[in-house]
Amino acid sequence: MTPDEARQLDAQDPLRTSRRAFDLPAGLIYLDGNSLGALPHRVRQVMADVIADEWGRDLIRSWNSHDWINLPLTTGDRIGSIIGAAPGQVICTDSTSVNLFKLLAAALQHQQGRSVILSQTDNFPTDLYMAEGLARLTGEAVRLTTVAAEALSQALSDDVAVLMLTHVNFRDGRIHDLPGLTRAAHDAGALVLWDLSHSAGVLPLALDEHQVDLAVGCGYKYLNGGPGAPAWLYVNHALQGRIHQPLSGWMGHARPFDFSPTYEPATGISRFLSGTPGILSMKALEAALDLYADVSIDAVRQKSMQLTGVFVRQVASLPGVTLASPEDPELRGSQVSLQHPDAYAIVQALIERGVIGDFREPDLMRFGFAPLYNSFEEVWTAAGILAEIIGSGSYREPRFQERRQVT
Amino acid sequence: MTPDEARQLDAQDPLRTSRRAFDLPAGLIYLDGNSLGALPHRVRQVMADVIADEWGRDLIRSWNSHDWINLPLTTGDRIGSIIGAAPGQVICTDSTSVNLFKLLAAALQHQQGRSVILSQTDNFPTDLYMAEGLARLTGEAVRLTTVAAEALSQALSDDVAVLMLTHVNFRDGRIHDLPGLTRAAHDAGALVLWDLSHSAGVLPLALDEHQVDLAVGCGYKYLNGGPGAPAWLYVNHALQGRIHQPLSGWMGHARPFDFSPTYEPATGISRFLSGTPGILSMKALEAALDLYADVSIDAVRQKSMQLTGVFVRQVASLPGVTLASPEDPELRGSQVSLQHPDAYAIVQALIERGVIGDFREPDLMRFGFAPLYNSFEEVWTAAGILAEIIGSGSYREPRFQERRQVT
Repeated sequence: MTPDEARQLDAQDPLRTSRRAFDLPAGLIYLDGNSLGALPHRVRQVMADVIADEWGRDLIRSWNSHDWINLPLTTGDRIGSIIGAAPGQVICTDSTSVNLFKLLAAALQHQQGRSVILSQTDNFPTDLYMAEGLARLTGEAVRLTTVAAEALSQALSDDVAVLMLTHVNFRDGRIHDLPGLTRAAHDAGALVLWDLSHSAGVLPLALDEHQVDLAVGCGYKYLNGGPGAPAWLYVNHALQGRIHQPLSGWMGHARPFDFSPTYEPATGISRFLSGTPGILSMKALEAALDLYADVSIDAVRQKSMQLTGVFVRQVASLPGVTLASPEDPELRGSQVSLQHPDAYAIVQALIERGVIGDFREPDLMRFGFAPLYNSFEEVWTAAGILAEIIGSGSYREPRFQERRQVT
Repeated sequence: MTPDEARQLDAQDPLRTSRRAFDLPAGLIYLDGNSLGALPHRVRQVMADVIADEWGRDLIRSWNSHDWINLPLTTGDRIGSIIGAAPGQVICTDSTSVNLFKLLAAALQHQQGRSVILSQTDNFPTDLYMAEGLARLTGEAVRLTTVAAEALSQALSDDVAVLMLTHVNFRDGRIHDLPGLTRAAHDAGALVLWDLSHSAGVLPLALDEHQVDLAVGCGYKYLNGGPGAPAWLYVNHALQGRIHQPLSGWMGHARPFDFSPTYEPATGISRFLSGTPGILSMKALEAALDLYADVSIDAVRQKSMQLTGVFVRQVASLPGVTLASPEDPELRGSQVSLQHPDAYAIVQALIERGVIGDFREPDLMRFGFAPLYNSFEEVWTAAGILAEIIGSGSYREPRFQERRQVT
């Protein structure tokens, strides 16, 4: 591919104008939107107003006058519209980890006589850790079983209460067959709990249509909600009244402002709230979600496959590099992972050249592609810089070896 | 008291200049800082910079370059310095409700052979609800027992694993004897878990000195961290390595960036983290905490007792009003609660006149006094407006009766 061909793809890109909605530093090629999404301009202004006017001027009255009290619901519904969920099934709250705990505990309590959480050995660690925590707390009445991705269907025994999977694997970007695995779990009498942290905002999802039971996701990757943005959870209407989560804080009460001494869960999705919602950070996420109001997720997915395709074609045959992501773009999320024995140093050398990707132990370079702001030309340029760094061996310089942690 | 006497108290107030650090709307007398603290100017500028520079410009690199990764620890230590805790024992994270769950579960698991969480019937509801949730999740292997405040010491049987109390009662503002009840609990073999949401930043606290085991608190009341600011938790050094919390997310792992498939808790206070920290909202709280850098909490407490004293003297004998808070200022937190059969309507009438307090079911008017920004003159004025509203009966007008919820 030539630079002209890349520029031509940009010229034909139906999403080309959405980049203007973001603050992107000049000279930087940011391929880490799968870790922290870029800043939408709009968030700066909205947050200045929320802080000065809603908090500073209207103070406690804003719970009513700016409807802070319903922000977890209204933000949840906006996310719902991106993931194929009708209103009233998504609520914005807490962290992905905490939401996983709530839904796992609720699922296990509902699935009387079944004690196993089935997951994938290479699931994102926090998902497994939260299941471990629940298992310890229940004195191992709940157990976590993990198997390789290929063995999941086979492992759906009649002791499996819930199949907990991350839709797009954080290391290699491989997409699970969500409809198929959901059906298989249901056929085996299990519920499903999907972690959509690497999917929401970049892959077409149809949670209602595929009869997903439970899901969680974060707000700070492709949804661009800011560092540590509030997470969210989905509970299918059909289950909502029948399951109970243990982090039963006052915001999940049927009538929180009665200050009753005993807990009575709210009837709808609000029962999955716990404490007071983090208004400032949720307002940032809400403002960022505006960018999705007029965007077709199918168009986002088309561009995502093209972007990863361009990158793969340019870099997969570089010396020492192995493509860790699926070759078939249909099986690949919006990321490309490359194996190389010196992955850490190469990522540092890329950063010095203004190309931001990230490193995952032990030998993965990870590049995320955000169709709302990444262009074909910059992806082409990044691939060229990667080729130069590998070709010249410049990554072997000592300054690129020093280890620091990066999320 | 005359207005001149109130102004004289302001002139002598060693904290009089700290009001200038806050945005306070002209014409408003804000006596609800015990529900949502006012906005420090500094937060506006800090947040604009955090959003534009740390998120927008430096993006994912800020986890290192702006030390986001340690923000829960550094913010925790700042709170520690306000509550009498040496560094390394407080961490800023999640909501008060979620933190209560973590610490209750950890305490119960540590206290083998003891199954009871003892609390006060009139504790803040979310504290009781979280204990209920833990009890349900463990199949009632854990039980919640609540008694009246006077009966707490008697109820410390040898089945009590943890005594969970809120230091300052949310309804009447009465202060528990923290050192005495902590000793009594320890003598009975129980741990203590104090909720300091209504204490931190306004009462002198000495958690280390009084050998408190566990504590939690919120960031949005007297700490002025903004609506739904992150909460925090304290675990005494002596206990840290010996207790385990069940919401074992990746941020509490000994080496989160190893992405190990099994959980290994961090050695220090970090093991009480769960998911990715909410950086934006924590940065607002951190900026707000700067106001405490040069302030003596003893001076804050002195002014607080004077402020509540002035208010009580002016209003306690108004017709139909009963003082619900302790008469002795030493037993009263930084709030005054008044009972009146028409409390709801009177609070609405006060709001219309620019005096913000709040209402608590069934018949309480609650007024919070924030020594960093409330003046004696405005407290005197607020008392006069309350006297006028009650004297004139204007609160009986229908528009003041319509119920809306306010936190």
